[in-house]
Amino acid sequence: MNIVLLGSNGRLGSLIHNQLNAENIPTFALAKEILATKKDFQNFFSNLPENAIILDVSLPTGTEHLIEQVKQLNSEIKNKLKGIVIGTTGHTNAQQEKIKDLSKEIPICLVSNFSKGVFLFDQILNAKTSNGMTVCELAHSLGFDLALNEIHHTQKKDAPSGTAVSLANTANLPLERISSTRVGNVIGEHTLYFSQDSEMLEIKHSAHSRKLFALGAIQICKNIIAKSPNAGLLAKEEFFT
Amino acid sequence: MNIVLLGSNGRLGSLIHNQLNAENIPTFALAKEILATKKDFQNFFSNLPENAIILDVSLPTGTEHLIEQVKQLNSEIKNKLKGIVIGTTGHTNAQQEKIKDLSKEIPICLVSNFSKGVFLFDQILNAKTSNGMTVCELAHSLGFDLALNEIHHTQKKDAPSGTAVSLANTANLPLERISSTRVGNVIGEHTLYFSQDSEMLEIKHSAHSRKLFALGAIQICKNIIAKSPNAGLLAKEEFFT
Amino acid sequence: MNIVLLGSNGRLGSLIHNQLNAENIPTFALAKEILATKKDFQNFFSNLPENAIILDVSLPTGTEHLIEQVKQLNSEIKNKLKGIVIGTTGHTNAQQEKIKDLSKEIPICLVSNFSKGVFLFDQILNAKTSNGMTVCELAHSLGFDLALNEIHHTQKKDAPSGTAVSLANTANLPLERISSTRVGNVIGEHTLYFSQDSEMLEIKHSAHSRKLFALGAIQICKNIIAKSPNAGLLAKEEFFT
Amino acid sequence: MNIVLLGSNGRLGSLIHNQLNAENIPTFALAKEILATKKDFQNFFSNLPENAIILDVSLPTGTEHLIEQVKQLNSEIKNKLKGIVIGTTGHTNAQQEKIKDLSKEIPICLVSNFSKGVFLFDQILNAKTSNGMTVCELAHSLGFDLALNEIHHTQKKDAPSGTAVSLANTANLPLERISSTRVGNVIGEHTLYFSQDSEMLEIKHSAHSRKLFALGAIQICKNIIAKSPNAGLLAKEEFFT
Repeated sequence: MNIVLLGSNGRLGSLIHNQLNAENIPTFALAKEILATKKDFQNFFSNLPENAIILDVSLPTGTEHLIEQVKQLNSEIKNKLKGIVIGTTGHTNAQQEKIKDLSKEIPICLVSNFSKGVFLFDQILNAKTSNGMTVCELAHSLGFDLALNEIHHTQKKDAPSGTAVSLANTANLPLERISSTRVGNVIGEHTLYFSQDSEMLEIKHSAHSRKLFALGAIQICKNIIAKSPNAGLLAKEEFFT
Repeated sequence: MNIVLLGSNGRLGSLIHNQLNAENIPTFALAKEILATKKDFQNFFSNLPENAIILDVSLPTGTEHLIEQVKQLNSEIKNKLKGIVIGTTGHTNAQQEKIKDLSKEIPICLVSNFSKGVFLFDQILNAKTSNGMTVCELAHSLGFDLALNEIHHTQKKDAPSGTAVSLANTANLPLERISSTRVGNVIGEHTLYFSQDSEMLEIKHSAHSRKLFALGAIQICKNIIAKSPNAGLLAKEEFFT
Repeated sequence: MNIVLLGSNGRLGSLIHNQLNAENIPTFALAKEILATKKDFQNFFSNLPENAIILDVSLPTGTEHLIEQVKQLNSEIKNKLKGIVIGTTGHTNAQQEKIKDLSKEIPICLVSNFSKGVFLFDQILNAKTSNGMTVCELAHSLGFDLALNEIHHTQKKDAPSGTAVSLANTANLPLERISSTRVGNVIGEHTLYFSQDSEMLEIKHSAHSRKLFALGAIQICKNIIAKSPNAGLLAKEEFFT
Repeated sequence: MNIVLLGSNGRLGSLIHNQLNAENIPTFALAKEILATKKDFQNFFSNLPENAIILDVSLPTGTEHLIEQVKQLNSEIKNKLKGIVIGTTGHTNAQQEKIKDLSKEIPICLVSNFSKGVFLFDQILNAKTSNGMTVCELAHSLGFDLALNEIHHTQKKDAPSGTAVSLANTANLPLERISSTRVGNVIGEHTLYFSQDSEMLEIKHSAHSRKLFALGAIQICKNIIAKSPNAGLLAKEEFFT
């Protein structure tokens, strides 16, 4: 596996870069400048070995430029690309269209959060119980009331966290049922409370290091290389395990 | 709804009795002695109003006598009985056969634990995620290791708790992965840990009062009356919500 | 011990009444109307046995009337009174003066929260560590950042809870560092987080039943009877253990 | 500040080395071989700059050789040494005597655990509450029962953990009140439960990265340099804040 890394000087990108080095996985950092001209971009990719995958942890505009440039590569180079993993979020409709269009030629996987535990959390909330209801629907029908608390470091600018909003959406929970605690250097804790008279069920995820996001991103790349899927938009759940 | 309560002087039975009184639900305590003779038993039931349900929180032998006596009631009385909820556990094969046999005439629901939260916990572990795996299978395939800790009061005689064993079975977890903490007057806490490098997901249930077991038992009775199912062994999950 | 209970028809008062009955402690419910006239009040107390203690869980105005009436009792009756435990809060300055004045004749103990665990929590925050700092001061000097989260049922009208405010005061924490979660029927959870890079210490108190407040109130009464202190304002910490 | 690091190729030692490099603190790794001969050892130290401190995270025998060699250094070199921080444990009586003897000439600080949070935890248990009792004594006198649970990764060989044993000692808790959970890659969680009827207080410490032990060790070195204490055995609590 060879990884082309876009966004390698960001906080997550540099963690991914370190981890790839530690695992001796050949990595090609794709500088922002190279995205600017078609010629530089093609030169960069013409030297690329087989079995390459692009991992994009830049910003939405970085993603847009990337997609546009890849689109124009010749088919010989495109064939080397086993997939593109996009970790940026907040794409405009136009950007989404471009991604969708390119996915007809190359497998593309959109991943808003690289934590396996958050993925498992989200999957639990949506999982179907024996009578056909989701876990959250069953909880409601049993009389449980739900609310979510998230804890992050004091430097975090937004509240509630994006992950809390996403989990609340899955749980069909209005945003006003999210509370936010800010303290010290907490990387991220999300707890969903199911409460009723005299009992409580809690599902809690704790991230202890930002490294896990790097590990999750690399795992998805490995799985795409291993499973060699056809072109298309890939379902994250098939490539995260 | 009229409830015939067997085992009303046990710890759970007396809580159920108090709660039924508090909710003004007509309750007929069925003394152990009445189970002893056919005549007393039939007299007891001949005076019973319509829409009756038997709630049995006695012991396995109490359950056996109950089943034998109900079997011999005439069909007019049997018709008054909308169902039997059996909260005893550890039945012999012979007892199970008798229960099964009677269920051809009267709806019977076997419930090993009356907590809605423990029921939800168990349902979560078995729920099917989007790729067809159960929650526990998905956790394993994502690289999580699982273990369970349970906390109970210092007077508890067995370890691990029956609920922990039952959750571990659902999670396909060998019993040696259960640890037990004994402290003070804790009614019951069960935590399932999903751990891997740099992150942890926890599912934790806390029972804060034995009253919740009484509430759960009564809820099931109410649902059976409301849904009026046909004779047969009832699936707990259809009558707990 | 004989207990004169003021406020016996409130939520906490009726729990205390039930618990006193369960413990076979002679209890004399003091109706609000009896506070209204000097004659009724004196009649009530003239029939009182020795070793009596007044437990007041009414409202601040109830406390005020109580204090005024007790003040006027003759010394023979006053001698029967081993103490007054006041569980109301939010007294005006005038009310505080009256309490202080009466305490010259009868031991009086002011208790804002009858939970032993909350008392222990508060004592921990203020406890002196080996180098003379309090626990909270030591935590700060070690580089920990502190914040508090409290969880209560959805019917609670105020946020943050009074207990959270009181703990924050002890910890020298500004009120904006308290977050509040509202869910289901939670009686009360308070968690103080101490966070810094790569580690977290948490102190968490959970109340599982309102009964504990009743137990705490009765404990203090028992201790005052047992220790038979001189007149004065009693320090809660000497009578809660 | 200049740090002489003994044990730099161990798991903790290499983390300390990386952290010292990241903070641009001049570091001199002291190879085990250099401890073997007096001449090599003196050469090593004669080239050392002023304001040096030795940080020993080797093994007890490493500590013993270190102490013996430092003892024989000439006074000019000894004067450069502002202190020795010893992070090894399990010293024999003879080793303890040698350490004590050298502490008459050079400040020495013995530190069994470099986590600030575990230090805070331990200090809390021993802290004196307003009536003169320690926190644990007060908890007992309030009727709380105590037990401890510790969680670590599945590769851990001993149970209970050394930190759990040490906290239990401080809390006067017999070792059979410690339970151990082993799961995944947990670096270390220690929870002390205070339970009684209807309420629970918990104190929980979570270590999220081994890096915190490195940070703690370096902090103590910095404080010794800053405070420049006289020769003697230093109390950890004066140099950890």
